[in-house]
Amino acid sequence: MNETYTIGVDYGTLSGRAVLVRTSDGHEMASAVHVYSHAVMSQCVPGRNRVLPPEWALQHPQDYLDVLEFTVPALLDVSGVSPDQVVGIAIDFTACTVLPTTADGTPLCFLPQFSTEPHAFVKLWKHHAAQPQADRISALAAQRAEPWLARYGGKISSEWAIAKALQLLEEAPQVYQAAARIIEAADWVVWQLCGQETRNICTAGYKAMYQDGAYPSFDFFEALNPAFAHVIDEKFSRDLRPLGSCAGQLTEAAGRLTGLNPGIAVAVGNVDAHVTAPAVGAIGNGQLVAIMGTSTCHVMNSDILTNVPGMCGVVDGGIVPGSYGYEAGQSGVGDIFAWFVEHAVPPRYHALAAERHLSLHELLTELSQEQDVGAHGLLALDWFNGNRSILVDADLSGMILGLTLATRPEDIYRALVEATAFGTRVIIETFEASGVPVHEFIAAGGLIKNAVLMQLYADVLGKPISVADSAEAPALGSAMHAAVAAGVYPDIQAAAQRMSKVRHHAFLPDPHRHRLYTRLYHEYRTVHDLFGRAQPTMKVLKRMRDEAHLRAHQHAEVVA
Amino acid sequence: MNETYTIGVDYGTLSGRAVLVRTSDGHEMASAVHVYSHAVMSQCVPGRNRVLPPEWALQHPQDYLDVLEFTVPALLDVSGVSPDQVVGIAIDFTACTVLPTTADGTPLCFLPQFSTEPHAFVKLWKHHAAQPQADRISALAAQRAEPWLARYGGKISSEWAIAKALQLLEEAPQVYQAAARIIEAADWVVWQLCGQETRNICTAGYKAMYQDGAYPSFDFFEALNPAFAHVIDEKFSRDLRPLGSCAGQLTEAAGRLTGLNPGIAVAVGNVDAHVTAPAVGAIGNGQLVAIMGTSTCHVMNSDILTNVPGMCGVVDGGIVPGSYGYEAGQSGVGDIFAWFVEHAVPPRYHALAAERHLSLHELLTELSQEQDVGAHGLLALDWFNGNRSILVDADLSGMILGLTLATRPEDIYRALVEATAFGTRVIIETFEASGVPVHEFIAAGGLIKNAVLMQLYADVLGKPISVADSAEAPALGSAMHAAVAAGVYPDIQAAAQRMSKVRHHAFLPDPHRHRLYTRLYHEYRTVHDLFGRAQPTMKVLKRMRDEAHLRAHQHAEVVA
Repeated sequence: MNETYTIGVDYGTLSGRAVLVRTSDGHEMASAVHVYSHAVMSQCVPGRNRVLPPEWALQHPQDYLDVLEFTVPALLDVSGVSPDQVVGIAIDFTACTVLPTTADGTPLCFLPQFSTEPHAFVKLWKHHAAQPQADRISALAAQRAEPWLARYGGKISSEWAIAKALQLLEEAPQVYQAAARIIEAADWVVWQLCGQETRNICTAGYKAMYQDGAYPSFDFFEALNPAFAHVIDEKFSRDLRPLGSCAGQLTEAAGRLTGLNPGIAVAVGNVDAHVTAPAVGAIGNGQLVAIMGTSTCHVMNSDILTNVPGMCGVVDGGIVPGSYGYEAGQSGVGDIFAWFVEHAVPPRYHALAAERHLSLHELLTELSQEQDVGAHGLLALDWFNGNRSILVDADLSGMILGLTLATRPEDIYRALVEATAFGTRVIIETFEASGVPVHEFIAAGGLIKNAVLMQLYADVLGKPISVADSAEAPALGSAMHAAVAAGVYPDIQAAAQRMSKVRHHAFLPDPHRHRLYTRLYHEYRTVHDLFGRAQPTMKVLKRMRDEAHLRAHQHAEVVA
Repeated sequence: MNETYTIGVDYGTLSGRAVLVRTSDGHEMASAVHVYSHAVMSQCVPGRNRVLPPEWALQHPQDYLDVLEFTVPALLDVSGVSPDQVVGIAIDFTACTVLPTTADGTPLCFLPQFSTEPHAFVKLWKHHAAQPQADRISALAAQRAEPWLARYGGKISSEWAIAKALQLLEEAPQVYQAAARIIEAADWVVWQLCGQETRNICTAGYKAMYQDGAYPSFDFFEALNPAFAHVIDEKFSRDLRPLGSCAGQLTEAAGRLTGLNPGIAVAVGNVDAHVTAPAVGAIGNGQLVAIMGTSTCHVMNSDILTNVPGMCGVVDGGIVPGSYGYEAGQSGVGDIFAWFVEHAVPPRYHALAAERHLSLHELLTELSQEQDVGAHGLLALDWFNGNRSILVDADLSGMILGLTLATRPEDIYRALVEATAFGTRVIIETFEASGVPVHEFIAAGGLIKNAVLMQLYADVLGKPISVADSAEAPALGSAMHAAVAAGVYPDIQAAAQRMSKVRHHAFLPDPHRHRLYTRLYHEYRTVHDLFGRAQPTMKVLKRMRDEAHLRAHQHAEVVA
């Protein structure tokens, strides 16, 4: 037996998931999960009681090391695979998740002087407190007509690296000063594994505006804040590496931590959504992968470079080397269904679900399933969390229209599911209208377990849906990159041919339902454009809401 | 003591409520309720198992006689008032509620040959099975440019007398043939009391298109159906009487039934909403009375006759003699709140309400009460039951806009209450824009018990709200008409001066909240006109819903 194996580790929001994979066919020999001890810190940091402001979301870098320490030995144990047969390791991470470190890679929060300083910890992807900085970046870029702005759908997110770095500078200059590096957590973990700092081209492109071989100019950063002028030179590694390349060899220390042999290949870091594309075989142009969970992220390769309205970003080699990688997103999907189930379902449904040993999601899905298309008479807008693609507008909100005294919870539930499917269809049609063809739709993520929902998506989109055939698709994708970095395969395309896991055309559209859904979709588009573009009602409501909260706050201060 | 007393009986949808009132000051000496044995028959009629088609709603005329037999003696008993001091009786009724009778007033359903024939029973106001006939009446009137059509906001309701009579003719010609009279239940009960058939001018005007001294022309009815040409001459009494006039004297038989002295005055019939106006002292021009319950009915006198868009009707002397009586309506109000509480509130709110011994309405009202205007960020359209005034469109539906993951049930509940208040404001502004001034807003009906809701209405409308100060305002209004018919007062104006019960300016608008609500109302108007006029989305959804139900029905038939 000359079998070789690789390990992929997927760092999520609350846990790290690792798999040990056979490189010849992608078979998953074992998997292991470690839940972060500190989870997401949105209230305070350890050792200090001061409450964090709203919109903060921090993590502790020790948790990332713990994932390696606890999962990798377990994989070896459970699978019975010898460390001698493991040829490489790769990781993927949430993004943009960044931390400040010293020149040798020590997180600033590990230093005594910064151990209770919130700004010294990891800023998780969903840390949204850099919104003022993000607004200034977008406005300045628009004002200066920066050519890269359109590559991000015209708006820079508060989640991304430059906004977070600028917040660090402006709110904690002493921490900014002390930081030799402001680094993606993905790249930081790779550094811990191989002892060498690298910067993956994926997050540099999608999260730090690296385009056409360059970051934004020195004077752009200077215009944001004079002290920010040299952020790229001073804080970011210039060692940009394509995905699937080797960052270095596993160090002795990392070998002791993980039980793996020092010297094996460590791949450069990657992002959870993007690494899923090769895991489901979506290596070719026009294969759109939707990672469907609380929100949905869409990634797709293309040989065409253009500006698609409302995209999150397009990056050369952002998914696989040699193609332009497009990313789009829907800000709320599964979390809308969760909101509904928690806040809008009456007791008799809870009782019925309990009696039948179903979750409320399962019960509502079953109850709504037999209805013909349009029978509920409802239409919803899926903007409960704002809209990323294609409108790039966080001030939009959700809507339900068509309510009558005969409307029942299962009707609304189904209308909400349909709204998210219509939102996906808008994204696909926008790609195609921009000259970027979408040939195939492949789904991954937690929602693919719901077959009724997947069938509904197929009916709405009018396209067959293939689905990921691994419960750990991102970790599998990382293991594939490890195989490439180790030289088992010449490139990710070759690895995907052998190792990817997908059920082709698992859901086929029903032509009758597709025709009916196209009529409903026409109404969705009308209302989408009405409230998303023509009509400011949603913005007026959010403004009035914010004003009311401000008055309440001022009143509370006067009283206090 | 020369005190005199009168009795008022209010016939509602499920019961009859009677009060015995002192004529000198309107003091209610006693009240009594009798619940109809047959309630609303929407499934079948007694003695026959055949299921009624959808949208049917019948009643049994015996229940109306039972109300007299059981409540009037109880009033005398409880109050200790001698029959010798009771000088008159009057009734008010739901409308349009009609039944076919013989020439002597015997309901056809009392005859053996028709005792199980649904068409021989009373068609209650909410019997909606004459919609096809109503549509034809509206279309024909529009086509012929009938001058009376605009008096009804451009549309004739399926609830009204002519549509119901035409349905009777076309679906049960033998019953139509046997009917010497098709009569309002109000007029029929008066007939039973005084032995003399009369026709009150209120229902003739609002429900049978009697305008400017004439019904629609012979050839109009002929064009609807040749056999319908003579419906007015053959089936309707021509003895039209103004409100408050005397229909006749109580018969010996009615004296035996009620325990009252034969010979006392019986007033002509009236309608529950309209009779409420004098009960709250709204006798003058521009005093708008809103009877707020599951739906809201608005009635107001004016000296100006004009066509106000979307009104239910304007009738000379329709509320009080000498003024033009306007009626408008909101199809869904309290029943929207009831829908929400039943179908959209999660278990933890039910538990909290139970623990605190509150109804869900009380709990949600309390939870939403402390929010400042606009704090929930929501806007709703109150069209769950379609829209009567001012859009006259049953195909419209409800909407909730501004939903986010932070939206809670009390937020939506409050937005729904606000939507109904905005709907009322639209009606008031439409009156005023049409040149019919609204000087005062007076509320009656079940919702006035909710002080938070009433305050919210005052804030939205920017007007002080006076409220009915009797729990039995319609019955009190009837008792006042009985006092006029008996000659205690020369007219209803004089009676109202002494007998009406109203808390003047019980709720005063808060200027700060009114200003904020005016901003929200501006958005409501925008969305109101958008979906009510410009944008057919709601109609498309209802059409698709109806098509889906038709397909399901056809499929079921094929399977059977």
